[in-house]
Amino acid sequence: MIVVSGSRPTGKLHLGHFMTIGKWLEFQNKADKSYFFVADWHALTSHRDDVNTIESSTLDLVRHYLAMGVDPKKSTIFVQSAIKEHAELYLLFSMLVSTTRLERMPTFKDMKENIKDKDLSTLGFLGYPVLQAADILTYMGDTVPVGEDQIYHVEFTREIARKFNNLYEEIFPEPEAYVASVPKLPGTDGRKMSKSYGNSIIIETEEKDMSKQIMQMKTDPARMRRTDPGDPEKCPVWDFHKAFTNSEEEKNWVINGCKTAEIGCIQCKKVLFKNMKEQLEPVWNNLKNISNDDAKKIILDGNEKARSVAEQTLKRVRNAMKLRW
Amino acid sequence: MIVVSGSRPTGKLHLGHFMTIGKWLEFQNKADKSYFFVADWHALTSHRDDVNTIESSTLDLVRHYLAMGVDPKKSTIFVQSAIKEHAELYLLFSMLVSTTRLERMPTFKDMKENIKDKDLSTLGFLGYPVLQAADILTYMGDTVPVGEDQIYHVEFTREIARKFNNLYEEIFPEPEAYVASVPKLPGTDGRKMSKSYGNSIIIETEEKDMSKQIMQMKTDPARMRRTDPGDPEKCPVWDFHKAFTNSEEEKNWVINGCKTAEIGCIQCKKVLFKNMKEQLEPVWNNLKNISNDDAKKIILDGNEKARSVAEQTLKRVRNAMKLRW
Repeated sequence: MIVVSGSRPTGKLHLGHFMTIGKWLEFQNKADKSYFFVADWHALTSHRDDVNTIESSTLDLVRHYLAMGVDPKKSTIFVQSAIKEHAELYLLFSMLVSTTRLERMPTFKDMKENIKDKDLSTLGFLGYPVLQAADILTYMGDTVPVGEDQIYHVEFTREIARKFNNLYEEIFPEPEAYVASVPKLPGTDGRKMSKSYGNSIIIETEEKDMSKQIMQMKTDPARMRRTDPGDPEKCPVWDFHKAFTNSEEEKNWVINGCKTAEIGCIQCKKVLFKNMKEQLEPVWNNLKNISNDDAKKIILDGNEKARSVAEQTLKRVRNAMKLRW
Repeated sequence: MIVVSGSRPTGKLHLGHFMTIGKWLEFQNKADKSYFFVADWHALTSHRDDVNTIESSTLDLVRHYLAMGVDPKKSTIFVQSAIKEHAELYLLFSMLVSTTRLERMPTFKDMKENIKDKDLSTLGFLGYPVLQAADILTYMGDTVPVGEDQIYHVEFTREIARKFNNLYEEIFPEPEAYVASVPKLPGTDGRKMSKSYGNSIIIETEEKDMSKQIMQMKTDPARMRRTDPGDPEKCPVWDFHKAFTNSEEEKNWVINGCKTAEIGCIQCKKVLFKNMKEQLEPVWNNLKNISNDDAKKIILDGNEKARSVAEQTLKRVRNAMKLRW
């Protein structure tokens, strides 16, 4: 099993990232090889006007990978733009895919409709899934842990692999997507967690500030008074419990207490934050001990390892396509 | 003056190539630096299913460059796919250009309408002018000898250069297109010279066979009998005279003789072929002495030179875009 996944370095990491990267750890232990990278070229599709953010977020992302337990002894941690072979494979794959197929991609339509403050009319944005296919197949990845919206891109990667294998030579695996069964975390106001809404919870936040954010979170809007019963399914705090509260007993206490108004929102949030802290505290402590320089060292080392694999793959690709220079 | 131009390796070279490459020689002598490359990645847009042709045509193209007088001491002769920096710059530029701008490119529309036997729906075909911009700007090219249909691509390259310079750092020149004032050569049947019509004259053809092709060329269809006067403007042989006959005296002899029926088509073609042979014979002789291995050596040497320039450019680009890995 060869696992490949990455994140875009576009700002501070929030609890959504915490969930995603958390899932990687399971794969790190099962996989024969695992590659976790920083998708800085991908970040350009939305942040080409703000490359300083990409640069600083790259190191920050790797600090978080390390703090959460991505282990450079087990996994190759690298930066996409350091491995030029991704760009070469992207160019070669671009000869195999039709633009209409790319325009029909649900993620393409969704993002075009929902994101109005970025220029998503670019060739780079249209080619996003092609670069992702190159990211995965450069390492012969067969297993890709993804969020639900990325399933289509892995399916598309399979198409490209198949097309290449048919046209030239049986080189690439057809990777499978593994959708992490992570409960989606809403923002503190119940809407989608998003930087632009100012409702996201940043991982690297002082304990007391994060506690404050939780205490100020919106709850079931129908529960106006302490004595009103609430409906957990309408409460973003319950979504957080599903992600952070492992004890069934505590979960039942929340559900029953909320529905019968036996517990108040403050009590409920205190238990939530206790459980969040349990999971976040080791990460906070690790982050304090991981400097940007540490991250840089790990990256430089990972880049070299990634590069040597990428070179091998591209050598085979060039050979199959008779581009032997 | 830094000159950059290239050809696609997609089959035997015909007299159209002879004209184009002939024009390069003027630039080779004027330029501070000149780069003439084999656009094998570009060839994939139309020949992805026939990579054997690309491979053999690559060497053949360079044999012709050399035979016609492209001088490796003055010009850098290289193969596009050997210089991975083009692919990297293509990827970076793809973040700066909109797909609608590319779809509006006249060449894009023309080719889509006229070429039905190739799959031109690909991302690679849409991105063709972006890769061309990368080809030119990798070497800081400021002067691009092109055919008329390529003017738009050089204009587009200027736009990309301007956009990059504005967003990041003043790195790139805005290149100028120089349209070679070469008379367009029709095919032997008067239609556009094209491999698929079987009407093109291959440069590397035995003298007697080429002479036969000329002798069988169509002429002004209104001149049915030897005694009918003809109209040179309606005769493809006259287009060839414009390209190959330098003597004004001979040209006048053709025009007057044809219009008054004083000369016959065979006489006219004999003079044409004499003049063609004068220009082609040295090339034929050179081609006999240039092997594929010779071409390969020149390419490997040129690739190294091109690569060291490309590396410098990309270093500056990555620096400007804060992608310093």
